[in-house]
Amino acid sequence: MQARPLMPVEEALERLLALAEAAPIRDTEDVALADAEGRVLARDLVASLDLPPWPNSAMDGYALRLADWQGEPLAVSQRIFAGHAPAPLQPGTCARIFTGAPLPEGADCVEMQENVEVLEDGRVRLLEPLQVGQNVRPQGQETRVGEQVMATGTRLGPIELGLAATLGHARLEVVRRVRVAVLSTGDELVEPGLPLGPGQIYNSNRRLLASWLQRLGCEVVDVGILADDLQRTGECLAGLGDVDLILSTGGVSVGEADYLGMALREAGELALWKLAIKPGKPLTFGHFRGVPVIGLPGNPASTLVTFGLLTRPYLLRRQGVTQVAPLRFDMPAGFDWPRSGTRREYLRARIEQGQVRIYKNQSSGVLRSAAWAEGLVEVREGTTPREGDSVSFIPFSELLG
Amino acid sequence: MQARPLMPVEEALERLLALAEAAPIRDTEDVALADAEGRVLARDLVASLDLPPWPNSAMDGYALRLADWQGEPLAVSQRIFAGHAPAPLQPGTCARIFTGAPLPEGADCVEMQENVEVLEDGRVRLLEPLQVGQNVRPQGQETRVGEQVMATGTRLGPIELGLAATLGHARLEVVRRVRVAVLSTGDELVEPGLPLGPGQIYNSNRRLLASWLQRLGCEVVDVGILADDLQRTGECLAGLGDVDLILSTGGVSVGEADYLGMALREAGELALWKLAIKPGKPLTFGHFRGVPVIGLPGNPASTLVTFGLLTRPYLLRRQGVTQVAPLRFDMPAGFDWPRSGTRREYLRARIEQGQVRIYKNQSSGVLRSAAWAEGLVEVREGTTPREGDSVSFIPFSELLG
Repeated sequence: MQARPLMPVEEALERLLALAEAAPIRDTEDVALADAEGRVLARDLVASLDLPPWPNSAMDGYALRLADWQGEPLAVSQRIFAGHAPAPLQPGTCARIFTGAPLPEGADCVEMQENVEVLEDGRVRLLEPLQVGQNVRPQGQETRVGEQVMATGTRLGPIELGLAATLGHARLEVVRRVRVAVLSTGDELVEPGLPLGPGQIYNSNRRLLASWLQRLGCEVVDVGILADDLQRTGECLAGLGDVDLILSTGGVSVGEADYLGMALREAGELALWKLAIKPGKPLTFGHFRGVPVIGLPGNPASTLVTFGLLTRPYLLRRQGVTQVAPLRFDMPAGFDWPRSGTRREYLRARIEQGQVRIYKNQSSGVLRSAAWAEGLVEVREGTTPREGDSVSFIPFSELLG
Repeated sequence: MQARPLMPVEEALERLLALAEAAPIRDTEDVALADAEGRVLARDLVASLDLPPWPNSAMDGYALRLADWQGEPLAVSQRIFAGHAPAPLQPGTCARIFTGAPLPEGADCVEMQENVEVLEDGRVRLLEPLQVGQNVRPQGQETRVGEQVMATGTRLGPIELGLAATLGHARLEVVRRVRVAVLSTGDELVEPGLPLGPGQIYNSNRRLLASWLQRLGCEVVDVGILADDLQRTGECLAGLGDVDLILSTGGVSVGEADYLGMALREAGELALWKLAIKPGKPLTFGHFRGVPVIGLPGNPASTLVTFGLLTRPYLLRRQGVTQVAPLRFDMPAGFDWPRSGTRREYLRARIEQGQVRIYKNQSSGVLRSAAWAEGLVEVREGTTPREGDSVSFIPFSELLG
């Protein structure tokens, strides 16, 4: 029936990223650091101070001016704790100094306390040869005023927020959250907690996607389950309000009962992409009254793969994120895959004894295998990896956050 | 000064995990799925239904009873959509059926629509040989009633929550959040947004740790910066209320100005572990009025490494999590490391062209290198990896969540 060649995964990703770049979220917000977790930086962060702000001691020890010292024991003329401003160094003396404390004016090196003998009269004898700059962290060693420290499009996690704090920023300009309407289609779906009628199953995609979207910094508009009814589907879509993406699962591949597709086509355009991906062949992209629409296949394993590999990067790019590709690692296969396919397969897999093992049942309806797994292993079209061959493994931690 | 051998990283981790197991969080909570994200399952999840609940069609096509069919064209006696209960199959006919719809009683296989010719009189001719069970997903194929689907101690992310939803669970029993008091010590510290006085620097650990702890499902009790003053430190500790861990940064290695250490020793015990780890040698573990205390070194890179490699697993194990080790991957080094050390080094690194590259400046005060990096590369004690040698890489995504 379908003679068109399948669309390679790379091409689908390229198209989606181009579509994302054509519809960037331009609004920004100024938020406190505590609220910036998981958000995307909307403006380059430029250092407004040197780090460290002044030369300071890398050790607990004694600060002195090397040129003034001929090897004699030195009187200790002040004690400098971190956080306190030192007096200029009195010539011919040294200063007791602690890690992180500013070097006093006039001093140019620090001897660590382990190499110092404290005499009975309180003077100290330095036991080892010294060099100018020894155990001193110079001003601006890490960062200089005016340097770009983080670029627009950086995702803000604990490390990035810590870095912003280091530079004194209490607030950051971030990209507004992407508002994503999540809807599931299918008369067979029932929400968890309710009784199952004949022929019905529980809706898992709503929870999978809502949690995942939140981790990606999105705001979820939870539409729930659409009835298999053209008029009600149309009414629901029209009432969505101001969203940046309509994300649906199910109802895109079944011609005769695809009310969502019909409703979307009535007020927009919709393309069905047949992807060379397994699980997850059919993916819909279109617009409804100007709002982008992505339709994912409904079975959970397909939803997982097509969301993780295609929709996640799309959503991050909408927010201006540059780095959207997950890390992947070449690992020896702990399995044989004798049947080469025409679609790129993503198998739920985990790492055991340094090899990638796959779940016994890769049938596409199975979230259980994904909970067992630690990531996805990619088997490329036309390949038949054998045990010990190198395969590409993508940890779930790289996809889920 | 210090003759004791340094404690290997493995030993420190083992000790911390044993300490965590000795002080498990026993309280549990019953929460809605939407609130269970990032939490830890407190009770085995056992399937209360078969998945799928009934045999169903894996394809859009036609369902029939193979033994009743001699190759003749078949009348279509009903149409079965997903979510609708079928009538028993009328003998000598087939049923139009869609993906996910229940198989009608009496049918035992499905022919996909691509292999069917629809005749002018509405009957269908099946063009290919068929087998019993073809394109049928049997009841209980994925999960059977009574099977354990997730074990106590499972961390709940999008996949696990989706799986719980599949089984009809709207609520889950989870472990109470660990309450962690986060405090920083040092007169040199100032919160971001305030002006820096002489000798002062901005406090970054508070933000780093607060964000990170939240990702680990912890509740953060934000104490802020303790003054370098024994009496006020003691008062602050006494007023912490009901917490499960006191987590401090800074002030554990400086003998003379270690007011936190003094205050803790007055009402508990405190051990200083000298770890064979770099950055991050000194780590404190003890108890204050029965509450466990972990003291991390204060510079951000050390905090990052000792929190990620030692405190994170401790906190997860307190919540009963079994799997606390991050995934790590052997990768070829893209650098030379000619100086072998007596401590295990964790270098901020990223992956470029399939090799692990390290940040040029690994000086321990630098969060900037961590923001640049994608993970940590481990250089073991006494080793001098060269470019192309295999080294162990831990992605930040594995540590930060």
